Amino acid sequence: MKLSSLKSGGRDGTLVVLDQFGDRAVKVPQIAPTMQSALDHWADVEPELRAVFRLLNQGNLKDAFALDVKQLHSPLPRAYQWADGSAYLPHVELVRKSRGAEVPASFYTDPLIYQGGSDSFISPHDPIELIDEAWGCDFEAEIAVITDDVPMGVSAEDARDHIKLLMLVNDVSLRNLIPAELEKGFGFFQGKPASSFSPAAITPDELGEAWDGGRVHLPIKAYVNGKLFGEPLAGSDMTFDFGQLIAHAAKTRHLCAGTIIGSGTVSNQDRSLGHACIMEKRMLEKLQTGNAVTPFLKFGDKVKIEMLDSSGQSIFGPIEQQVVKYDKLRRAA
Amino acid sequence: MKLSSLKSGGRDGTLVVLDQFGDRAVKVPQIAPTMQSALDHWADVEPELRAVFRLLNQGNLKDAFALDVKQLHSPLPRAYQWADGSAYLPHVELVRKSRGAEVPASFYTDPLIYQGGSDSFISPHDPIELIDEAWGCDFEAEIAVITDDVPMGVSAEDARDHIKLLMLVNDVSLRNLIPAELEKGFGFFQGKPASSFSPAAITPDELGEAWDGGRVHLPIKAYVNGKLFGEPLAGSDMTFDFGQLIAHAAKTRHLCAGTIIGSGTVSNQDRSLGHACIMEKRMLEKLQTGNAVTPFLKFGDKVKIEMLDSSGQSIFGPIEQQVVKYDKLRRAA
Repeated sequence: MKLSSLKSGGRDGTLVVLDQFGDRAVKVPQIAPTMQSALDHWADVEPELRAVFRLLNQGNLKDAFALDVKQLHSPLPRAYQWADGSAYLPHVELVRKSRGAEVPASFYTDPLIYQGGSDSFISPHDPIELIDEAWGCDFEAEIAVITDDVPMGVSAEDARDHIKLLMLVNDVSLRNLIPAELEKGFGFFQGKPASSFSPAAITPDELGEAWDGGRVHLPIKAYVNGKLFGEPLAGSDMTFDFGQLIAHAAKTRHLCAGTIIGSGTVSNQDRSLGHACIMEKRMLEKLQTGNAVTPFLKFGDKVKIEMLDSSGQSIFGPIEQQVVKYDKLRRAA
Repeated sequence: MKLSSLKSGGRDGTLVVLDQFGDRAVKVPQIAPTMQSALDHWADVEPELRAVFRLLNQGNLKDAFALDVKQLHSPLPRAYQWADGSAYLPHVELVRKSRGAEVPASFYTDPLIYQGGSDSFISPHDPIELIDEAWGCDFEAEIAVITDDVPMGVSAEDARDHIKLLMLVNDVSLRNLIPAELEKGFGFFQGKPASSFSPAAITPDELGEAWDGGRVHLPIKAYVNGKLFGEPLAGSDMTFDFGQLIAHAAKTRHLCAGTIIGSGTVSNQDRSLGHACIMEKRMLEKLQTGNAVTPFLKFGDKVKIEMLDSSGQSIFGPIEQQVVKYDKLRRAA
């Protein structure tokens, strides 16, 4: 099943069921008005939403309408929790190596997760508003899951059962703000502005054999200005699966339905598949030649992130965004 | 005006207007069903809510009912953002001093803020569920503000106008998990479980002259097992006011209405007024005698946090919580 949220209808948008190809959609106010509302009552509404999905794919719903992807927001336009892991150790190893530091042994047994801002996500086709190019704007192509209610102290194995939906993420990062921010010791804040998510949130069964219960075994594709930047395999080198990430997040507290848990930048030991963020490429350049030459995103640059199934069909729909200079006056108008 | 949320009515509770003394309340479904809904439309609903507050205080509302504080949740039972500052530098200085480190000069000009978990706050009179006493459970008595929509890049001065409500906070902290967690570089996660907030969220005018637009000039009182633990002055030694904290949080992104910004543990250079967390007392003991003797909270221990006006009236109502051993089976029942 594929779900999404129309931008219209208020701050939380309007829940829609998408058809298999993301071409047509139908509102479901009789089941749940918003995505968060559906997640708040998931066990009750899931069968009803699946029934609508079946009818929609059969062409049997008179209220269905042709979809313009620009109508869609991130599946949760705002969320009560966005916790992003850093589960691909090749990414962490490269970051550390570029500054001459070792990766602590504990990093291979204890997941890294940071608490992200979740109050106002960007729509998948809306611009990334940036005040200053010098902040070093980068994308991070990731996978994320949405959970139902997760009890404190859940095991990694039981945590897998709480994964209800999957999405792609662009975890926008301001690289030149991050070192000083992390140095202060309290983690990311200004260095991680609003993220955006793929138009569709899908149930795990949509992935077929590409989903093993904790990892997605497909490449994630990232493009900059129309050119393939990387297509690393999301199923490889993910040291901690989503069950482990959720269990880590729930060690000392309950997680509310609608919690989004991210994988961190997809990254492989095999560097031949390119990169899911610009920083990795720059660090490799620095290690190889002493100079990082690939620039971070400038005003006007475009990023696209998507994932295709074995037949070449986009599973989640693409995230396609342009970096623009933030214009306070234009926005207020 | 004083607002609160009943636990009943769903995950976001039910918005109620409280009378001046917090004794009586009235639901306002015709204005806004929940606190978040009121904040989403604050400019429109504030005058209507204030009208109800006036009538309630005059005893002119037939739907008003006598309130049992146990009916109340945190004013926002869950929020889209909880960003907690560390604005009282005496607290930071003591933490650093106890481990023999200097406070970087930048800490006096650049606020510390961490992104907290906001998906499921504890009710002000519900227990703090803890799996393991060895995690070193501590309270932190703080003040927090709730904002309306704040545009990216707001100035500290303009940010003050976005402060719509104030609350008290118990920012529960697991001291023995924090050092290893911060060492990893991504900030707090497991070390900061669910926080709780005072029963009432109040508009700034309720503080009269004790509110200067950015700071609250009253002592915050913290009790452990019925004994006063500290009553530091919230208006003293707050290096960054709430306008500066909000501006820091909004430097690279918009903040959604309903964003909660915390002050950090209230702490004074003058140690004679005691402490708003146990850790500070332990650090002073360690510096003075080599041994921290005051224990962290154990199962059964009680914490109370409140703030009184000049006539001795509780302004926000108290946060009163007991630490209990988490019982997964009991909770599921």
